[in-house]
Amino acid sequence: MKKLIFSALAAVSAAWALNAQQALGPGTGLISPEINPDHSVTFRLYSPKAITVSVTGDFLPAKAVEVEMAGQKLTAMVDGSAEMTQDQNGVWTYTSAPLEGELYSYSFLVNGQKAMDPSNVYFKRDVATWVNYFTISASKGDKGYWYEVRDTPHGTVSKQWYTSPKLGGALRRMTVYTPAGYENGKGKYPVLYLLHGSGGDEDAWQDLGRAVQILDNLIAEGKAEPMIVVMPNGVYFNNAAPGYAVNMFQPTLTNSRSSSTKEIEDSFPDVISFIESHYRVAKGSGNRAVAGLSMGGRQACALSRRYPDTFGYVGMFSGVSPIESAEDENNIASQFKSGPKLYWIGVGSADGVKANCDRLRSYCDAHGYKYEYYESDGGHTWRNWRVYLTLFTQKLFK
Amino acid sequence: MKKLIFSALAAVSAAWALNAQQALGPGTGLISPEINPDHSVTFRLYSPKAITVSVTGDFLPAKAVEVEMAGQKLTAMVDGSAEMTQDQNGVWTYTSAPLEGELYSYSFLVNGQKAMDPSNVYFKRDVATWVNYFTISASKGDKGYWYEVRDTPHGTVSKQWYTSPKLGGALRRMTVYTPAGYENGKGKYPVLYLLHGSGGDEDAWQDLGRAVQILDNLIAEGKAEPMIVVMPNGVYFNNAAPGYAVNMFQPTLTNSRSSSTKEIEDSFPDVISFIESHYRVAKGSGNRAVAGLSMGGRQACALSRRYPDTFGYVGMFSGVSPIESAEDENNIASQFKSGPKLYWIGVGSADGVKANCDRLRSYCDAHGYKYEYYESDGGHTWRNWRVYLTLFTQKLFK
Repeated sequence: MKKLIFSALAAVSAAWALNAQQALGPGTGLISPEINPDHSVTFRLYSPKAITVSVTGDFLPAKAVEVEMAGQKLTAMVDGSAEMTQDQNGVWTYTSAPLEGELYSYSFLVNGQKAMDPSNVYFKRDVATWVNYFTISASKGDKGYWYEVRDTPHGTVSKQWYTSPKLGGALRRMTVYTPAGYENGKGKYPVLYLLHGSGGDEDAWQDLGRAVQILDNLIAEGKAEPMIVVMPNGVYFNNAAPGYAVNMFQPTLTNSRSSSTKEIEDSFPDVISFIESHYRVAKGSGNRAVAGLSMGGRQACALSRRYPDTFGYVGMFSGVSPIESAEDENNIASQFKSGPKLYWIGVGSADGVKANCDRLRSYCDAHGYKYEYYESDGGHTWRNWRVYLTLFTQKLFK
Repeated sequence: MKKLIFSALAAVSAAWALNAQQALGPGTGLISPEINPDHSVTFRLYSPKAITVSVTGDFLPAKAVEVEMAGQKLTAMVDGSAEMTQDQNGVWTYTSAPLEGELYSYSFLVNGQKAMDPSNVYFKRDVATWVNYFTISASKGDKGYWYEVRDTPHGTVSKQWYTSPKLGGALRRMTVYTPAGYENGKGKYPVLYLLHGSGGDEDAWQDLGRAVQILDNLIAEGKAEPMIVVMPNGVYFNNAAPGYAVNMFQPTLTNSRSSSTKEIEDSFPDVISFIESHYRVAKGSGNRAVAGLSMGGRQACALSRRYPDTFGYVGMFSGVSPIESAEDENNIASQFKSGPKLYWIGVGSADGVKANCDRLRSYCDAHGYKYEYYESDGGHTWRNWRVYLTLFTQKLFK
């Protein structure tokens, strides 16, 4: 009987393998990307009929390009690319320089059109764009080190729905991280509310931001306090649970951006109230932080000002909310009366929103409002936001 | 100040839009797939230099192909394909026949090589293959209807780590679904342990099987009892949390299959013990079900036999464990002494493992062991497993 069963299973395997092969074409056995001992990386693609193949990604030096938008000439930075060379078997290859520990993304350009790496199952989506990724964990404590699941205790990540009365009773979803030990204990934990940017959703900080691994690793090494991290969906007019909802919502930067912070300001008490009634949460502003990137940075800034006694810690990553009215002036004055314990601004030197951050810093300087400022290289990218989160979370609840 | 801020934000948008455009090439504004009012679907791809473009997917009739494997000639079913036609702007188009409500997957073949649809952000991974997907929810209660997030109460999904003493203290991860109302109540719930197949992991039933939406929708309509669903990682020698772990593990059918059920049998008490000590769980065999697909079906079958008093409900989807030894005979006799309330076998008429299922059924018939049998069209596919889950879960804990 054993033999018969094996044959039947073999038939199943054949069907599956064939599906995969049909989809991937020949060259499926290639290893790509291959991380070499010196941390250079070799990319391989089988494409015998292609005329040109190159690899593009954030492991290559970014290049500046001129674009025209709304009548203005602007300079934008885009990922660099490198030509691959073809061998006699139709396999195109490129080997990078040795790379620092980091999470990198890339894709191929076959005859100028984007192609994913069929040898690498790992992809991530950023708004409407998918790219392959790989991580280099070069040495203990480098960037890549914080972004990987290590052999340490792990927190739990939940996709949690709640009803928002202030959004007309809408069903909304959030991602909630509870640190290792939460389930086994009775203690109460401080909470970081962490907001995504335009085009993002409640999955963004988990998938692109590696927030779960960063917190797991920092907490395991005693560098951050155990905390709950709440990642809501900050675009009130879009469905939650993208990809599973009834409509085939296709996110773009413009259809996933709320230009005003009004709705998230008005409805945010629903988020806090849900968390504080469903989780073991330490209350009071000393146990609450709010942070976000880009649009989420504007939201974090605005929320902390609108509710001046609620958040003891504020993190603005490549995004701040301007001081534009007498009401704004009154609100920030009220916020700094007792003063947040930390008012943290992080931005890249090449980021288009740096001027906004500079203006808010000047305003704070002029009024004696204390803040911390961190300026990195680079622009408006997840590479920077992961670093800002790694730095910011080490300063919380201590 | 407002105007300056707008310019700065515009610069950011330009940089992002450019990244997307560079990646996707022109033709980014296309709508694909477009679900037409008659539920036909139009696919579009901009590829002016391509010589041939076709679309392949499970919305087209499957076709039989001959393959040779391990010296045997076998017939395998693969997705059909259809040629697309190019217009003068370089856009290739194909419109399908009207389709039934279902979750469909597809990809393009450009000059014979796989290409994803740059107009559709939604992909799913099955082992090493990625495909785009779309859902048609034609009418209330059709297949597609169960697979989408509807406007009903939703359960919570958690990625939950635990330590398995019987696997040498390994850190393992499982996906846990708790039904709507769990957090707000004090009641205890029955548990379905739901196992994936070869090449899968703790994410498979959630991502490919739509287990969360199926349970949410069935429970909301009163067709299934509220239950906890536990989806562990059934390949003890592979890392959990694929894509986030330190190594770049690339799953295949062969490196993600345990040919023996011994390890999962030995270590499964760790899973049950973790769940029963960390969740509000109703105990006893009448409150425990185990089910799985393919390899997971074999595991569910073997687990129910090894622990004859533990599971009141057993579901085997395209996979059973054979009766090969006197020990197997004793175990199944012991299992059927008090008898599971439900011993459910589902398989497709074209599935290579149907012969195994037939043998187990004959054995049960000969010994008077009661079971339910459901035979569908088609083969060894997620389309069938989603249906089996939808049917099986309506029979549990009643």
